[in-house]
Amino acid sequence: MKEIAHLLFETRMLKDIDRSGYAFLGSGRESIAEHSFTTAFICFTMAKIEPEVDSEKLMAMALVHDIPEARTGDHNYVHKKYNQVDEAKAVSHLAAGVAFGRDIQDLINEFNLGETQEARLANDADQISFILELKKLKDTGAVSPEKWLPLVMGRLKTKTGKQMAQSIMETQWDEWWTREYSE
Amino acid sequence: MKEIAHLLFETRMLKDIDRSGYAFLGSGRESIAEHSFTTAFICFTMAKIEPEVDSEKLMAMALVHDIPEARTGDHNYVHKKYNQVDEAKAVSHLAAGVAFGRDIQDLINEFNLGETQEARLANDADQISFILELKKLKDTGAVSPEKWLPLVMGRLKTKTGKQMAQSIMETQWDEWWTREYSE
Amino acid sequence: MKEIAHLLFETRMLKDIDRSGYAFLGSGRESIAEHSFTTAFICFTMAKIEPEVDSEKLMAMALVHDIPEARTGDHNYVHKKYNQVDEAKAVSHLAAGVAFGRDIQDLINEFNLGETQEARLANDADQISFILELKKLKDTGAVSPEKWLPLVMGRLKTKTGKQMAQSIMETQWDEWWTREYSE
Amino acid sequence: MKEIAHLLFETRMLKDIDRSGYAFLGSGRESIAEHSFTTAFICFTMAKIEPEVDSEKLMAMALVHDIPEARTGDHNYVHKKYNQVDEAKAVSHLAAGVAFGRDIQDLINEFNLGETQEARLANDADQISFILELKKLKDTGAVSPEKWLPLVMGRLKTKTGKQMAQSIMETQWDEWWTREYSE
Amino acid sequence: MKEIAHLLFETRMLKDIDRSGYAFLGSGRESIAEHSFTTAFICFTMAKIEPEVDSEKLMAMALVHDIPEARTGDHNYVHKKYNQVDEAKAVSHLAAGVAFGRDIQDLINEFNLGETQEARLANDADQISFILELKKLKDTGAVSPEKWLPLVMGRLKTKTGKQMAQSIMETQWDEWWTREYSE
Amino acid sequence: MKEIAHLLFETRMLKDIDRSGYAFLGSGRESIAEHSFTTAFICFTMAKIEPEVDSEKLMAMALVHDIPEARTGDHNYVHKKYNQVDEAKAVSHLAAGVAFGRDIQDLINEFNLGETQEARLANDADQISFILELKKLKDTGAVSPEKWLPLVMGRLKTKTGKQMAQSIMETQWDEWWTREYSE
Repeated sequence: MKEIAHLLFETRMLKDIDRSGYAFLGSGRESIAEHSFTTAFICFTMAKIEPEVDSEKLMAMALVHDIPEARTGDHNYVHKKYNQVDEAKAVSHLAAGVAFGRDIQDLINEFNLGETQEARLANDADQISFILELKKLKDTGAVSPEKWLPLVMGRLKTKTGKQMAQSIMETQWDEWWTREYSE
Repeated sequence: MKEIAHLLFETRMLKDIDRSGYAFLGSGRESIAEHSFTTAFICFTMAKIEPEVDSEKLMAMALVHDIPEARTGDHNYVHKKYNQVDEAKAVSHLAAGVAFGRDIQDLINEFNLGETQEARLANDADQISFILELKKLKDTGAVSPEKWLPLVMGRLKTKTGKQMAQSIMETQWDEWWTREYSE
Repeated sequence: MKEIAHLLFETRMLKDIDRSGYAFLGSGRESIAEHSFTTAFICFTMAKIEPEVDSEKLMAMALVHDIPEARTGDHNYVHKKYNQVDEAKAVSHLAAGVAFGRDIQDLINEFNLGETQEARLANDADQISFILELKKLKDTGAVSPEKWLPLVMGRLKTKTGKQMAQSIMETQWDEWWTREYSE
Repeated sequence: MKEIAHLLFETRMLKDIDRSGYAFLGSGRESIAEHSFTTAFICFTMAKIEPEVDSEKLMAMALVHDIPEARTGDHNYVHKKYNQVDEAKAVSHLAAGVAFGRDIQDLINEFNLGETQEARLANDADQISFILELKKLKDTGAVSPEKWLPLVMGRLKTKTGKQMAQSIMETQWDEWWTREYSE
Repeated sequence: MKEIAHLLFETRMLKDIDRSGYAFLGSGRESIAEHSFTTAFICFTMAKIEPEVDSEKLMAMALVHDIPEARTGDHNYVHKKYNQVDEAKAVSHLAAGVAFGRDIQDLINEFNLGETQEARLANDADQISFILELKKLKDTGAVSPEKWLPLVMGRLKTKTGKQMAQSIMETQWDEWWTREYSE
Repeated sequence: MKEIAHLLFETRMLKDIDRSGYAFLGSGRESIAEHSFTTAFICFTMAKIEPEVDSEKLMAMALVHDIPEARTGDHNYVHKKYNQVDEAKAVSHLAAGVAFGRDIQDLINEFNLGETQEARLANDADQISFILELKKLKDTGAVSPEKWLPLVMGRLKTKTGKQMAQSIMETQWDEWWTREYSE
């Protein structure tokens, strides 16, 4: 149990690390924990749209996909050019000691390989989580998202992911509550 | 898909709402999204400890358990005394339109009833997520957590939850990386 | 005096609770205490414009109108749909024990009924405080205020309130100092 | 009305200026608007304890006492040693143009002279507003307030102010809600 | 050494004081320490462009030019109208006790007189540091910088400063990394 | 000049990146720009204590020592275990195009090698900048600095650095102004 307590405190750290892309975008902010929650919830909805996928695996993959960043830090596009991140080592260290460490490693490996449908969907969810943020920033007055949205859209691989993102692009961020607004 | 875009923007709002308990604690802060991520990850680990539980359901329950708070707001102990929250109505509205709305409703109902083992574990994870935060605040110099930790501990229902929390209490928040520290 | 100390600490809490509407607006932030100050100062000016009103009552009403929110939380448009707030109970509890508790209750009741000229002005001041914020956000680049300003303007009831708001709409937020600017 | 719009935007600025003492205390923060709200509410309660004072004048004095700081900035103990603040000029400029400008000037002058009972109470309220903040910081783990609380207490002039502050010192900041807490 | 420790803690305070101009701009924020770093780095580059200037003096001047603001506070355009700042007294007090206090005084005096080429460049660097911030805010969606940029540009005195600022105006804030961007 | 504009915007980014160690410390925050300013100012004082060193080089070294972190990110103790940072590549890219790029490279190389007295002092200044922050946090109530201060002290190499740090340890963070305090 001691090792699990360590793992939980390690994962807790994702609340205290902001995603480094927003400083370079010039607007917005988000912790890794917030990003991970949104990604996992998007995976929950994807599993409903594609009921043949392994929903448990899909959500678990989203929950753990950024956990190694407590050890490695979060690297944006520029940072990646100058850092060789040994994510495998980070995963191996965080997994060591907990009985189910191997499961975490397998999930992250599968996510990174992106070969299974679950991995492809989880990777799309990772991008859609960012698209949601960019769309909100755009709708509220930020300038930079206009430039990035098409590029991030272009990273999507699955039909479900593309449709979901397309729908987000056609929706105002506050429509979910303003459409029923009356004074 | 339009309805799913609405649901995702609604869920995204959990990043922008801070949990209201921390103002009354006098230290710390956390968004609902951050809390939900930690709760879901705790559920992921619980399912590894209790392999007979429905892991998919457990994680899904954690991911959705606070989603209605985008509509209701987050209410701390004091707020609850003066608000009659119609969570069912919030859930029904957020679920309306999406094909899998019924699934979300069922998960939240099960969480609230707390009768299945999955629901009991998810409720304990909800508290353990708070215990992690209180323990970190205590370890770094805040005074109030000392008073609240025993009370929150007392809310735990499952053997796994109690053991996990006990282990957290016996662990320094930064031990996961300081134990291997060397200059 | 002990009860007054409690009341002051309770009121102090309004500094630590942000008004929940700004997250849904997507720009800006403001604590309830900041909002209450601005509302009370607007009432001070209104009493100068309408010297026949009870200035003392008007300012006092503004100062206390949101005090129950330390117990109830601040609810925006969406939250109100899903919360039945027992503000009367909150007021009764916060007023209990202090000798002048009844005075606070009476002021809040009068504010809520909105039947006296003082209450109508205080309610308008409550809205004008929001209009000032929206106008500043609009002038500095936020997109959403454009949509909300006409709606909030429409809530105004008094001639003084309407004139004041109209004048705010015709004034740049920084004109008070930029009009005398010289290098 | 244009001049009143200017005055309201000027007063709104008090939300965006933090009181400079907290950086030197090393803990906490507070905007001038938040401080002014608390000061005005303390004056509201003082007028209830001392019903013979002019309650309207007392509250108005608290509301306007820091308004010139939009033009002058907020100066802590150290800053005051190196700045000769022409508050009178600031007041005269902010008051110019509005019909009731003279009233604001008179209130600020009376506050600064500290000769009337209303002015003495308002000055004590100004300090008690700070004492409330220091006591909260102390109760939650900050070290510096211990040193400052006796000094700030020593600035109080009125019997009501002294009793109120004494009572605050004997009260835990969260007692107003924790005394009725039950799991 | 004790006096140097005092001076270092005093200088450290510049991290905790935000430059007061941004609240009046309505967008952005920056500590005095951040501003001083940027100013000093600009001076470093200026010394490379004008190798005949005393590079050591130029950088030192930038590093110390705002140190007295720990004692005086940072005053924006409006604040300066109502404060007579005794910067010389602040400098004399902060310099007292340290053996090289006279050097600091001389550097600040030279900066303020603006007669040497090093002082003119340092003053331009002070403005260019602000121009960089305004340009970034403009490029990311803020409205106010459009109005201020020409005015701040007009304050520049040196050929190097003017060319540098002109080049900043013709450059997108994120071009340094986006020009090499590829998916 | 275009390349210099790029370099300045790149360096400006150091204001928007927080040093990653504070999240792991559990208290405090600081941008890289703030850290760089303090480090450079400490170097300025060191050059006064050791007049035989090359003051220009010492300050320049401090100003540029963390500039590559705009491209690489800031890595704390844990992050360094899992990242192979190609700082040389980052320096080479940021230096490319500017005529004095080679000078920046040389300064950073000398800093990293730590063989000259200037490099040794600059490295100590880098640590003392952190010690100042830890001491302030300790003096104001944080718990973790107690554990880290001796370790960071142990990294110091120069006699001047050690004496300076020792003096900081024996000085209260607010003594520079409280020693002359009187009500």
